[in-house]
Amino acid sequence: MIETLVVRPILASDYPRWLPLWDGYNAFYGRSGATALAPDITATTWGRFFDAYEPVHALVAEQGGALLGLTHYLLHRSTTAIAPSIYLQDLFTAEDARGKGVGRALIEAVYDRARAAGIPRVYWQTHETNHIAMQLYDQLAEKSGFVVYRHMIE
Amino acid sequence: MIETLVVRPILASDYPRWLPLWDGYNAFYGRSGATALAPDITATTWGRFFDAYEPVHALVAEQGGALLGLTHYLLHRSTTAIAPSIYLQDLFTAEDARGKGVGRALIEAVYDRARAAGIPRVYWQTHETNHIAMQLYDQLAEKSGFVVYRHMIE
Amino acid sequence: MIETLVVRPILASDYPRWLPLWDGYNAFYGRSGATALAPDITATTWGRFFDAYEPVHALVAEQGGALLGLTHYLLHRSTTAIAPSIYLQDLFTAEDARGKGVGRALIEAVYDRARAAGIPRVYWQTHETNHIAMQLYDQLAEKSGFVVYRHMIE
Amino acid sequence: MIETLVVRPILASDYPRWLPLWDGYNAFYGRSGATALAPDITATTWGRFFDAYEPVHALVAEQGGALLGLTHYLLHRSTTAIAPSIYLQDLFTAEDARGKGVGRALIEAVYDRARAAGIPRVYWQTHETNHIAMQLYDQLAEKSGFVVYRHMIE
Repeated sequence: MIETLVVRPILASDYPRWLPLWDGYNAFYGRSGATALAPDITATTWGRFFDAYEPVHALVAEQGGALLGLTHYLLHRSTTAIAPSIYLQDLFTAEDARGKGVGRALIEAVYDRARAAGIPRVYWQTHETNHIAMQLYDQLAEKSGFVVYRHMIE
Repeated sequence: MIETLVVRPILASDYPRWLPLWDGYNAFYGRSGATALAPDITATTWGRFFDAYEPVHALVAEQGGALLGLTHYLLHRSTTAIAPSIYLQDLFTAEDARGKGVGRALIEAVYDRARAAGIPRVYWQTHETNHIAMQLYDQLAEKSGFVVYRHMIE
Repeated sequence: MIETLVVRPILASDYPRWLPLWDGYNAFYGRSGATALAPDITATTWGRFFDAYEPVHALVAEQGGALLGLTHYLLHRSTTAIAPSIYLQDLFTAEDARGKGVGRALIEAVYDRARAAGIPRVYWQTHETNHIAMQLYDQLAEKSGFVVYRHMIE
Repeated sequence: MIETLVVRPILASDYPRWLPLWDGYNAFYGRSGATALAPDITATTWGRFFDAYEPVHALVAEQGGALLGLTHYLLHRSTTAIAPSIYLQDLFTAEDARGKGVGRALIEAVYDRARAAGIPRVYWQTHETNHIAMQLYDQLAEKSGFVVYRHMIE
């Protein structure tokens, strides 16, 4: 029997299975150990997924009762559109579940939700050295040619 | 007498002087003529600057009664912070006012507002071929190494 | 054959059937003729129903292809709760459809959506002289004992 | 020397002086002892005052270094206006500071902020038995004739 991969909105009961994915995602970007995300940020972000006033959403990919991946996305305004944009901020597949189409399924599920909500534009960022991820992204989206500058306020 | 460059929040009375800057900015990104931004988008975005419920803001750089530049920025949530981020979406200096520090003054004014509002992070995007702008950006911010993928929902 | 009364989210194609209900509702509160709501308010409110970034929602009651009623509700913060509240701002049943449970069905549909979204509190206002409506409201909600003061900024 | 009463936005350093006012306000509405507001609600609301993305604001009335009163207000959409409304949710004057114009100063400060932000409407609720407060409210606002129904979702 082959278990189907299902992408669905996160549930409060997912917390213990979501947390290792979130930790793994953060570790990939160097946020672990001494530089780990503060626990109150994780608690706040988790709460926002279930706060209907917050335009922050989470989907998980589930197969056979295991969570294999996550995506978190948020809506924000744009000056060049009447409709909001979706910023797909986080995407992660468990290490032992890679190569099975989990990332693709999660991105396509965000596209489906964008379409249903009348949102014309989904975008995300990836590091210029992340060539493995780009193999997938090049199939699903357009590399815009835009690069990101950032400044932290002291 | 040397007129001081002032960066200030946009006013309703700025509309006739803001519009040419906005059109110039859009033209720079290829949104002119047949591909111009729809007028109702401009009207909606303009209205949002003055709608206190919308987290969309505009500043203009003024000198001697002339508007020399604009910046539009918006607040949005982030999953990796409790505080929101500022996305500095638009920045433009009138062609005949370049090289006078207008862009720098606008960006620094956004930093000031971020600091006053307790917002730790300001970021923007620029095209990888925009080397002239990057000369300024490299002085004011960090080139993050992140690139932008985007997908339009048909 | 008895047609079932269905309460569902509004669709863009409902506009020509929604508008007479909205006009009827506004007329009930004295907003008709010289004191009618400005058309750009109606256009803006209509647009917000379909803007996924706006916490403003509309449901309609449909029976046999006719729209019999509407409700518009919005989410907002509260200082005495972590979750948002729902303010059910508008409720209207077509005059020739009264006494059939349309208002009740609309309110209960808002309750259902509140429950699904984890929102603990739904409230609305009615005029103290609206005894007919209160016969229904007293069955569905608690008369809080609170009265509304308002001030228009000149 | 007579110390001037100043109404100003709340500061993070106000917390130890704000908390007794907030507790006093809640106690007035029966939220004390066994029915006290949960501490995480207070912590969340406090955090929202300083979160620039949240349309929730707090002002305090200060005199001679003491906080004499508070008001918390929030912006929300309205279907009958393009601009948002201000809901002045909380207003409280310390018991030993009553009769000195603190409440009036707080309400008028909210009006000033509404005016500056282009918001045409400020409203609040009070209990129909709160005749002392109404003596003030009748001078500053219009008793609308609307009463509030509410329903808690189990």
